[in-house]
Amino acid sequence: MTESDLPVVQLRPYRWGDPQRRAELPAFAAAALGALGARPAPPPVDPDAARLPDHTLADPARAALEAVVGAEHVTAEPAARVAHTRGWSTPDLLKLRAGDADDAPDAVVLPADHDEVVRVLQVCAEHRIAVVPFAGGTSVVGGLVADRDAFAGVIALDVRRLDGLVGLDPLSRTATLRAGLRGTRAEQLLGEQGFTLGHFPQSYEGASIGGYAATRSAGQSSAGYGRFDELVVALVLATPRGTITLGAAPQSAAGPDLRQLVLGSEGTLGVITSVTVRIRPRPALRVFDGWRFDTFAAGAAALRALAQDGPLPTVLRLSDEAETAVNLADPGAGGSGGCLAIAGYEGTAADVAARRAGASAVLAAAGGENLGTAPGEAWRAGRYQAPYLRDPLLDAGALVETLETATFWSGLEALRGAVSAALTETLTRQGTPPVVLCHISHVYETGASLYFTVLCALGPDPLAQWAAAKHAATAAIRAAGATITHHHGVGTDHRDAYRDEIGPLALEALRAVKRTLDPAGILNPGVLVG
Amino acid sequence: MTESDLPVVQLRPYRWGDPQRRAELPAFAAAALGALGARPAPPPVDPDAARLPDHTLADPARAALEAVVGAEHVTAEPAARVAHTRGWSTPDLLKLRAGDADDAPDAVVLPADHDEVVRVLQVCAEHRIAVVPFAGGTSVVGGLVADRDAFAGVIALDVRRLDGLVGLDPLSRTATLRAGLRGTRAEQLLGEQGFTLGHFPQSYEGASIGGYAATRSAGQSSAGYGRFDELVVALVLATPRGTITLGAAPQSAAGPDLRQLVLGSEGTLGVITSVTVRIRPRPALRVFDGWRFDTFAAGAAALRALAQDGPLPTVLRLSDEAETAVNLADPGAGGSGGCLAIAGYEGTAADVAARRAGASAVLAAAGGENLGTAPGEAWRAGRYQAPYLRDPLLDAGALVETLETATFWSGLEALRGAVSAALTETLTRQGTPPVVLCHISHVYETGASLYFTVLCALGPDPLAQWAAAKHAATAAIRAAGATITHHHGVGTDHRDAYRDEIGPLALEALRAVKRTLDPAGILNPGVLVG
Repeated sequence: MTESDLPVVQLRPYRWGDPQRRAELPAFAAAALGALGARPAPPPVDPDAARLPDHTLADPARAALEAVVGAEHVTAEPAARVAHTRGWSTPDLLKLRAGDADDAPDAVVLPADHDEVVRVLQVCAEHRIAVVPFAGGTSVVGGLVADRDAFAGVIALDVRRLDGLVGLDPLSRTATLRAGLRGTRAEQLLGEQGFTLGHFPQSYEGASIGGYAATRSAGQSSAGYGRFDELVVALVLATPRGTITLGAAPQSAAGPDLRQLVLGSEGTLGVITSVTVRIRPRPALRVFDGWRFDTFAAGAAALRALAQDGPLPTVLRLSDEAETAVNLADPGAGGSGGCLAIAGYEGTAADVAARRAGASAVLAAAGGENLGTAPGEAWRAGRYQAPYLRDPLLDAGALVETLETATFWSGLEALRGAVSAALTETLTRQGTPPVVLCHISHVYETGASLYFTVLCALGPDPLAQWAAAKHAATAAIRAAGATITHHHGVGTDHRDAYRDEIGPLALEALRAVKRTLDPAGILNPGVLVG
Repeated sequence: MTESDLPVVQLRPYRWGDPQRRAELPAFAAAALGALGARPAPPPVDPDAARLPDHTLADPARAALEAVVGAEHVTAEPAARVAHTRGWSTPDLLKLRAGDADDAPDAVVLPADHDEVVRVLQVCAEHRIAVVPFAGGTSVVGGLVADRDAFAGVIALDVRRLDGLVGLDPLSRTATLRAGLRGTRAEQLLGEQGFTLGHFPQSYEGASIGGYAATRSAGQSSAGYGRFDELVVALVLATPRGTITLGAAPQSAAGPDLRQLVLGSEGTLGVITSVTVRIRPRPALRVFDGWRFDTFAAGAAALRALAQDGPLPTVLRLSDEAETAVNLADPGAGGSGGCLAIAGYEGTAADVAARRAGASAVLAAAGGENLGTAPGEAWRAGRYQAPYLRDPLLDAGALVETLETATFWSGLEALRGAVSAALTETLTRQGTPPVVLCHISHVYETGASLYFTVLCALGPDPLAQWAAAKHAATAAIRAAGATITHHHGVGTDHRDAYRDEIGPLALEALRAVKRTLDPAGILNPGVLVG
């Protein structure tokens, strides 16, 4: 079965909650949830019973779309519409669990190739149909919610039929991947030829190549393989006005780097239909070590030393005391308090040995205690699992959500304090004191990202409860001068903070680009620049 | 003396020909020039006698500019106008040597700071004065020639008074540099605090920070330090409509990376007034080795191995047989034919030793013969000198010019052949058979740049002679799908090829950005998107 044969309705009614492998909360978690005041919640509404909006595509629009992609690739079946409603954030889960599918598209359209995407966009421009480009559907920032005002309808443009590896240049170490290809399948196809993309975001089991590109995905191995925006050497963009093809060389001085204008545009400027990416030889060896630091500051200094002077592991992250305590509450995780760092190495045996020896010396010199491979391998084994706990946590009456940011090294500790305080104060004021966990998820020579996980009891109005916490965290991030998002993207959730971050004149310039490529404004209205 | 005290008239009447250190042709060169058919040319016109255009700024415009920057910072002195005429290309030299200063600005304006730059742009928009942003003035692609049609005048906006290091964050390893700071002075100021920018383009002795940023300068040490566009973490742009400040974090998923929209915009979207760049500790040790390969293909494969699998030297380049022969014609250079590669290492003693040992093993395994440090140190000592030979070469009746491109590894050899053939055929057909030299100047995991030097006898109309050769080379580059410029930029010379490279829709998007930021179109009209 190829990816394009996947059913339109995915077996993930609540997105993170694949019933085929329903996650169970570990035993220790139940006690912790009790201490937070969590009480079991009523069971969620069956997705089949979710309230869909009453909208339908007008017959002429539907006929025009069917003429492009074939009638069998336009569907308004309720299950397909629900499966294309919003993304993977906790608010998205909360809404769907409450039976609210109000943001569902009127129909799902599945073009076969780049040309069909262009023609679908042209039809939609002509019929004033808003278009939500849909790859893996894993947005956690409201990136899949079209503002339908002023439009005659909304479709999800699902790129899953644009799958496959369509070119591999072993000498240049590049591969051309179509937008709908799942990350997992891309790894499989590249692996068959001895290569890896090396891109492993937490959404890896669901996300697709086009989404990686459209949202500047980072990936947990960014220290070693680079962010997705660093992997892309060329791309093809379908717009309502035609095609843009960019990337004549690895790097160029031919004007601005317009690849970087398309990457991160979140479907508002066009639909990325394929990318050519840097690939690496499939690693012969993977080793993940755990390291313990007495304090977050000591661990951060160690990570900074590696990021600035090397050698750089493939994966490098540091949990704060609270996150470490939660990790270590699982008896399998080993260690003894403090802050847990993970340093992972992938490559040839010689490369892994050399980098591991060099980095271990730096980590030890910075006060790190080597915990061996057990915590590292435990992290690696469970790296995609945490989000699957959301449904059982919600069942148990606990709200869990994440947010992330990045800044320069000199401001990192202050940023961590400010965001933690904002989250704690806001939720405590609401009567639901939280546990706030934080880790450094990605490092650069000049700075790092911070990833926060918040856990508290569900209040009576969980959407408003989280919105207040998120608002406070956002204000703290912007007050610190940090970026509103390091790898989740802007979507609709970060739109106001994004405007603040880039300022009105830059926003106006970006809107001018959008008006040029998408004069009817049909592409993801309300997202990013909306 | 600080940079801002430099006289407006620089002591470089023909730009590359500083009379204080007039270059002499080596003895071996004279015989070679004779073989090419070069005959001594008439002496150049004294720059003081160059024909300036008759234009003057209208009094109200001049008064408004003086009100912003002070009367002493607006000058229409002939010497200042000549010194701001065009850049450093061979056609630029040819024109000025012929007494042609037709592209001179009407006046030179020297604002003191960012706010004055914004106000100068506003005055110019109001009075319909075209603005040529001028930093080091080292463009070799016609980046300093305003199309004055439809404007009431043209000024050079010289940013030399925006000098200085205005902030250094040793923990984050970043420094904020103003646009007019010369690269040499930046190194000096950073060096006093133990750091280096590590950016050494061939124009290093003349170029400035703002120019590096506006043109995506690469630098000869890009393998180790990164291209300038990779060094910039934040920037401030002055536009006629106000200020844009970008860069809240090392990397971000907050929309497109708009820093990369400003970098490479060549003064057409605004004037970059400062950048915050990644800095590195000043290296304790520098070692440059020479390596000999039997063929260019063998050397290129060795460079590719280092670029893809490491360890990567700080400087890595490979001359083809012809360039190697010219280099080795100098008896000081050592070696014995084949292709000369330079592998340079900068860093701590331990880092240099480790990378040198690792890289040397790779180079040797790929068939390289170690020539020791003499050729490497000779290259390092002379790295900025070659362009100074242009004036004595022109005196001797020889035309010399360079051009460059980049592509992916699998297309590199074909690209080199196609461009060499295009240059050779065109110039031979004109009766001036050339010597064409080529080297790989910058390497990436997925590809590399090629840098060509062309030497032939001056024909009766050298501008037309070179234009035909350049046209043929450009066609060959685009036919190969390669980029029209890896690090020289677009300017006016590459404008048509640039349009071909990015396509009409992307160009339209870029023009929409320009219209937003520069509605009167005063910024560098005719350059890049003009």
